[in-house]
Amino acid sequence: MIREGDFVLLVSPEGKEFMIQVQKGKVFGTHRGNIDVGSLIGREFGCSVLSSKGEVFFALKPTIYDFVKRVKRKTQIIYPKDAGYIVLRLGITSGCRVIECGTGSGSLTTVLAFAAHPFGRVYSYDMRSEFIELAKENLKRTGFDLPVTFKVKRGEEGFDERDVDAVFIDVKTPETLLDSVWQSLKPGHPVGFLLPTANQVSSLLKALERGFCVSEVCEILLRRYKINPDRLRPDDIMNAHTGYLVFARKVER
Amino acid sequence: MIREGDFVLLVSPEGKEFMIQVQKGKVFGTHRGNIDVGSLIGREFGCSVLSSKGEVFFALKPTIYDFVKRVKRKTQIIYPKDAGYIVLRLGITSGCRVIECGTGSGSLTTVLAFAAHPFGRVYSYDMRSEFIELAKENLKRTGFDLPVTFKVKRGEEGFDERDVDAVFIDVKTPETLLDSVWQSLKPGHPVGFLLPTANQVSSLLKALERGFCVSEVCEILLRRYKINPDRLRPDDIMNAHTGYLVFARKVER
Amino acid sequence: MIREGDFVLLVSPEGKEFMIQVQKGKVFGTHRGNIDVGSLIGREFGCSVLSSKGEVFFALKPTIYDFVKRVKRKTQIIYPKDAGYIVLRLGITSGCRVIECGTGSGSLTTVLAFAAHPFGRVYSYDMRSEFIELAKENLKRTGFDLPVTFKVKRGEEGFDERDVDAVFIDVKTPETLLDSVWQSLKPGHPVGFLLPTANQVSSLLKALERGFCVSEVCEILLRRYKINPDRLRPDDIMNAHTGYLVFARKVER
Amino acid sequence: MIREGDFVLLVSPEGKEFMIQVQKGKVFGTHRGNIDVGSLIGREFGCSVLSSKGEVFFALKPTIYDFVKRVKRKTQIIYPKDAGYIVLRLGITSGCRVIECGTGSGSLTTVLAFAAHPFGRVYSYDMRSEFIELAKENLKRTGFDLPVTFKVKRGEEGFDERDVDAVFIDVKTPETLLDSVWQSLKPGHPVGFLLPTANQVSSLLKALERGFCVSEVCEILLRRYKINPDRLRPDDIMNAHTGYLVFARKVER
Repeated sequence: MIREGDFVLLVSPEGKEFMIQVQKGKVFGTHRGNIDVGSLIGREFGCSVLSSKGEVFFALKPTIYDFVKRVKRKTQIIYPKDAGYIVLRLGITSGCRVIECGTGSGSLTTVLAFAAHPFGRVYSYDMRSEFIELAKENLKRTGFDLPVTFKVKRGEEGFDERDVDAVFIDVKTPETLLDSVWQSLKPGHPVGFLLPTANQVSSLLKALERGFCVSEVCEILLRRYKINPDRLRPDDIMNAHTGYLVFARKVER
Repeated sequence: MIREGDFVLLVSPEGKEFMIQVQKGKVFGTHRGNIDVGSLIGREFGCSVLSSKGEVFFALKPTIYDFVKRVKRKTQIIYPKDAGYIVLRLGITSGCRVIECGTGSGSLTTVLAFAAHPFGRVYSYDMRSEFIELAKENLKRTGFDLPVTFKVKRGEEGFDERDVDAVFIDVKTPETLLDSVWQSLKPGHPVGFLLPTANQVSSLLKALERGFCVSEVCEILLRRYKINPDRLRPDDIMNAHTGYLVFARKVER
Repeated sequence: MIREGDFVLLVSPEGKEFMIQVQKGKVFGTHRGNIDVGSLIGREFGCSVLSSKGEVFFALKPTIYDFVKRVKRKTQIIYPKDAGYIVLRLGITSGCRVIECGTGSGSLTTVLAFAAHPFGRVYSYDMRSEFIELAKENLKRTGFDLPVTFKVKRGEEGFDERDVDAVFIDVKTPETLLDSVWQSLKPGHPVGFLLPTANQVSSLLKALERGFCVSEVCEILLRRYKINPDRLRPDDIMNAHTGYLVFARKVER
Repeated sequence: MIREGDFVLLVSPEGKEFMIQVQKGKVFGTHRGNIDVGSLIGREFGCSVLSSKGEVFFALKPTIYDFVKRVKRKTQIIYPKDAGYIVLRLGITSGCRVIECGTGSGSLTTVLAFAAHPFGRVYSYDMRSEFIELAKENLKRTGFDLPVTFKVKRGEEGFDERDVDAVFIDVKTPETLLDSVWQSLKPGHPVGFLLPTANQVSSLLKALERGFCVSEVCEILLRRYKINPDRLRPDDIMNAHTGYLVFARKVER
């Protein structure tokens, strides 16, 4: 049942999605007429609601995907196509302790914590406190009580935790953090990196030669199709690049 | 510490990976010489081990990714690039109850259970009992005690559960299961499908028009690079197709 | 040497390209200042020219690529990535006689004629005379005297030519033209099709079963990179779909 | 009509293609039975021929695409997907004079000459004479009398021609040839490069800063579909990388 304060995903007749927080008396304006958002309280998710122009909208249950895709951002975010793969590559499940460096807007923080909860914990480092505030806000919106400890600290100074199950690094010069990663990571366990440029990948691969064994360098492309059974075809344009992913494991050095 | 019965990922000098179960006295033969697998017992993950030819191998900790990639298979499997995205799209986290129809070799079953554990549960249906036996075996190898209930039953007869958080369907003619999905799924909640052909996507989209709201049709491509900092370039060939993914949500009908 | 009436490709300091026809007294305004276009007359291609703001622009020689990319359009055009492949697949070289049906804005017409000249000829059919006028205009801008005969006629009524070396069809329902194609094409010779949707490809493949042997169904993706040696990376977005290409050859029926 | 000495493309019932030179008395063995190749003499292209097992094969007319795809090779070749685009980017048409450096197996040589003939000419340089012999042989097989002059010479020593319309470079360290390119190319005219690695692209882009204006860095991907109207889907695997393409134009230096 939809309650006051819940987020709902309002979907227009042509499939446009709006994420709305439900409040009494709130009206949400769309190109297809106004929606009386308060009227959703007490109804079931999946219900239809008529706009002031008589158009049918549906009120759906958002998933973590919808929250992550819509984080308020001051940075480039990590997209679900990449985040889902990162979680599997790093093996994050309930109980895992994970370090993330480069909180940014907190999109990956959210996904890691979602995967690690209820018994794990994410330690998320960023040297810019305004990003940590933003990430906290984005995390709160999901409605999950996710286990994250934020730290305003440069990764080069070392991470406070030891024997973590996995590490993910999303900063410009990850080479400078490899000693910190090595100190904190369980032996044989994985670390991942996201890097926008090929030059960064080359630099990182060189630096990883000492103390790490590289498993994979890859990129993931998501291609959407128009939702039309009689005219099935890909969208005209797509995101062509978010970043290169690099995965490695700590070994003896 | 590596114990008898653990799986380790043995990595050769040129990066070839072998998943091995550790046993006393076991010898594993490679093109780079034999490895005394028993000698790993009591050592740390990440340690190096010399082959009989004096080559250095590393013994790494496998993650769920490595198990899923290597499931014993009698069917086409769902790959990590797709499985990670499916988990986020369906919003699977600890505590979720999920129905899967089309167990196959159990690769997605493993990922869903890994995401839902310890407080959730996966109900995995397949009409072919030999596949369920195979999936059980694959699940067991991961070493996780994952919460899965297997059922040998055709999806068309209906699923036994009600009000599940999400459903995933991987069968040839998913159109015939939509009534079963609708009966078992919480209103407003997501269902996903994997389909090899464009024709199947068209048929499914038509059938979804009643009782479901489609969010996305997409495909995910993973492109690997050679791990060489001085000659960074994509692999020569790649998997060009696993399947089309379709995501929808249950609405009033 | 640049002469009055020539087209030049003016390139701004950051790499933005403008195709300009050179005229005495003409001034071209850009965000980087005005360019005295007339001053280019008598200079060499490749020369630099200063804008009114003191910025350096280069005046380059456009190739057929630049003309085709910039055709005035009232329709979806066929892009160079597809057109180049079509020319090779159809084997168009000087002396070839080619039928095109679906002139549209004339982008492929231009490329086919460019490949077939000086001794070949393109017969381009469209039932909409305004498109043929547009194509003529686009063809004229290239400055080449390209051998094209335009015809305002529906392909279903048959093409006037016999024993042509190749045919290319870019219309909504190519199935209806297959008899016309078969009548006009040399036996064993190729025909190509561009189709936006997967459903059209399925329909066409079924129709081709009589009288044609299909060689290939494919799509071509072009992915651009940012021109920055220190930060090499793909563009953020790309064209994800222009159309599916189908190639077949006429056989006994 | 098929004559002795012609190449034909024999296509099996399931679409497998074989390029065969027609000779009296020649028998060609396939998994579907033997084909009496000599019996094709005097018949039309597109005709059917029965194998010794009673299976229907078609004898099709090969196009330049088929020859280029099947060049005898001692090197990585340039594929039609790239070659077609290169021709348009460089603006090669009848009458153009083009320098190619890095003949290799002659696949691009063939395409450039096919585009430039009958009034143009390709000057193809390679320092390894065995490659030039191979390229000559491949060129001859096409049956076209294509206008190519081969030269065994290192590009660093300079090309013999002046004021050519376009240049294409396919060697490991194109940076070392830029002075030669600049000397031989018409001002404002295009030069293209094919490079397997990202590192090479970075090095080249830096070197091009003097005397050239870069238009584009890109890669072209061709994705094939299975030829099945009822089960339309991409092939399982695809070529994921041939090379990065770089296009630039000569400017004042």
